[in-house]
Amino acid sequence: MSETSVHPTSVVSPSATLGPGVEIGPFCVVHDNVVVGDGSFLESHVVLGSPTAGYYADPRGYEPEPCRIGPSAIVRSHTVVYAGVTVGESFECGHRVTIREGSVVGASVRIGTNSDLQGHLTAGDYVRIHSNVFVAQHSTIEDFVWLLPNVTLTNDPHPPSDTCTVGPTVRRYAVVSAGATVFPGVEIGEGALVGAMSLVRHDVEANTVVVGVPARVLGPTSEVTCDDGKLDRVYPWWSHFRRGYPEGVLPNS
Amino acid sequence: MSETSVHPTSVVSPSATLGPGVEIGPFCVVHDNVVVGDGSFLESHVVLGSPTAGYYADPRGYEPEPCRIGPSAIVRSHTVVYAGVTVGESFECGHRVTIREGSVVGASVRIGTNSDLQGHLTAGDYVRIHSNVFVAQHSTIEDFVWLLPNVTLTNDPHPPSDTCTVGPTVRRYAVVSAGATVFPGVEIGEGALVGAMSLVRHDVEANTVVVGVPARVLGPTSEVTCDDGKLDRVYPWWSHFRRGYPEGVLPNS
Amino acid sequence: MSETSVHPTSVVSPSATLGPGVEIGPFCVVHDNVVVGDGSFLESHVVLGSPTAGYYADPRGYEPEPCRIGPSAIVRSHTVVYAGVTVGESFECGHRVTIREGSVVGASVRIGTNSDLQGHLTAGDYVRIHSNVFVAQHSTIEDFVWLLPNVTLTNDPHPPSDTCTVGPTVRRYAVVSAGATVFPGVEIGEGALVGAMSLVRHDVEANTVVVGVPARVLGPTSEVTCDDGKLDRVYPWWSHFRRGYPEGVLPNS
Repeated sequence: MSETSVHPTSVVSPSATLGPGVEIGPFCVVHDNVVVGDGSFLESHVVLGSPTAGYYADPRGYEPEPCRIGPSAIVRSHTVVYAGVTVGESFECGHRVTIREGSVVGASVRIGTNSDLQGHLTAGDYVRIHSNVFVAQHSTIEDFVWLLPNVTLTNDPHPPSDTCTVGPTVRRYAVVSAGATVFPGVEIGEGALVGAMSLVRHDVEANTVVVGVPARVLGPTSEVTCDDGKLDRVYPWWSHFRRGYPEGVLPNS
Repeated sequence: MSETSVHPTSVVSPSATLGPGVEIGPFCVVHDNVVVGDGSFLESHVVLGSPTAGYYADPRGYEPEPCRIGPSAIVRSHTVVYAGVTVGESFECGHRVTIREGSVVGASVRIGTNSDLQGHLTAGDYVRIHSNVFVAQHSTIEDFVWLLPNVTLTNDPHPPSDTCTVGPTVRRYAVVSAGATVFPGVEIGEGALVGAMSLVRHDVEANTVVVGVPARVLGPTSEVTCDDGKLDRVYPWWSHFRRGYPEGVLPNS
Repeated sequence: MSETSVHPTSVVSPSATLGPGVEIGPFCVVHDNVVVGDGSFLESHVVLGSPTAGYYADPRGYEPEPCRIGPSAIVRSHTVVYAGVTVGESFECGHRVTIREGSVVGASVRIGTNSDLQGHLTAGDYVRIHSNVFVAQHSTIEDFVWLLPNVTLTNDPHPPSDTCTVGPTVRRYAVVSAGATVFPGVEIGEGALVGAMSLVRHDVEANTVVVGVPARVLGPTSEVTCDDGKLDRVYPWWSHFRRGYPEGVLPNS
């Protein structure tokens, strides 16, 4: 692996640690106490180690928590990752992603353009988050979960309040379709499917389909059929869809 | 208060006025006729005084309206504020916020990441706008209003048209929950609550709850109960939630 | 037309071609093999010719497809256009627009702030896309279509899958209102109107109104009336709304 390559326009703190083979494009800002793992790419206009509110309360006394990304990350342009975030290996994100402080993101995660992870949340390994997804603080997203475009995970049942704040939990292999909104504290069970534009107010059992505003149970995911007949069995999705997953990480189909 | 601090990479017009203690991060663009009040922070990649359409029609003849922000503002990265915008003191915004021309924003307002204020609108004091909110032109948002993530205020009942254009009015203390869309010209009454993912086609009375697609009246906000029993009285929200408000600005609880 | 004007901070590849009168603002990145037509403006923090996934798989062997924009384009700040995109003349976009590879966009198209065109799609002439619209890969948007804020065009009926992927087709003059989501493969007929926050699962006939979750037929667009009586005839919209269209391109009203 080659030397690090930092575009001369970028502003990189002397206290940042860049692994071998790291490539940083133009107009990036890498703040203090950032660690970028080997072979990671940053496109242009990226900010790593963005300061938390503590900086503005006391700029001189502020000591940033570390921000760790990679190795082998691809961070696309205009993305902002805060101090106090840990992102595992082989991360890939779209443009203008935001990940706020206190977030722990697993390995081999992909996050789409304009998505906004509000912080103090966990996302497991192989999580797939599409474009423009909003994840409230204190959400839990387990391994192999899919959140499609414009999904919203909320954390305040009676806004604004301080006393009831807790995000949803999305169990592994679950799929939340485009435009769905999930209520605070709701648990989406393992392998469950939430239909597009659904409003999920109550827990969803494992391997169950819910749809509607508000969402109601349609039946087991095993009964979902493919409209054009190209798939004999649609769910569990890993029975036919394995693109991007190394051999052995998904159940046998 | 100390000197102004402008990162050497930033491009600041000689006709901009920066108060004492202003701190401007890397890669910002501050156009002509911008005024930044004392003690304000601009993070990186921010644009203030962004040109209106008139510039592109006649670049040499263009004379920008002033853009005024602060004092004591925190403008986070990749935000764009147009010429012809006035934002009051103690403003704070997330990343990639857009505020277009003709907007007047009050004091102590917070606007979340990716929100898009389309211009020619007013927002009062202590307004709280979360992430990814869209506010159409000619909307009115009174003091102490909350707009939760992905709320959309629209202004054209028969798109596209020129003759019917008027935005919603949201009266003080009202709360519009995540993903709700409000029709043009609709008035959300003082202290009203719009449920998540509701489509609001008609005026909402003061202190009234509406939910659904299309929204229907559920009852008075005084009857909303807290699912986990932690709150005896949920609304008015200022009876229990006062974080971030100086003493004396909210009604007595 | 005057000389090209490139802000000294911007990074422009020697293999990019800039027409006469092109003006490029600060902190832009113009990659290899980009062509910007005469008289086009790029605001600040724009990226043209953004690399596709092939670059990250093999940086040294990567050869970018051309990225062509203009003439007479206005590309607002923080926008990203990929290699392998062709955009016609008189293009105008808001801030932070994304257009990914394999997209062919016609002439006189406008795309609003934060909209995300996922690539491998076509958009015709005079298409109007508002803020924060998501267009999935393999979508087809014909001439004179309007997509209002937060519209989502999806392309996977059984996410995640590989076998059923196809985007919607929106026929000319059709209008999709704010917050509507359209299912994969659905055809929205010529001149049709989709109501706000509708979920469109089935094809919509020409000149027909659909609304709801899921969407149901309301009737012909010719029967839509204007609430405040200012318009005798609301649809077809081009019978009263012709702003921004040169004479002769719309049908006679």
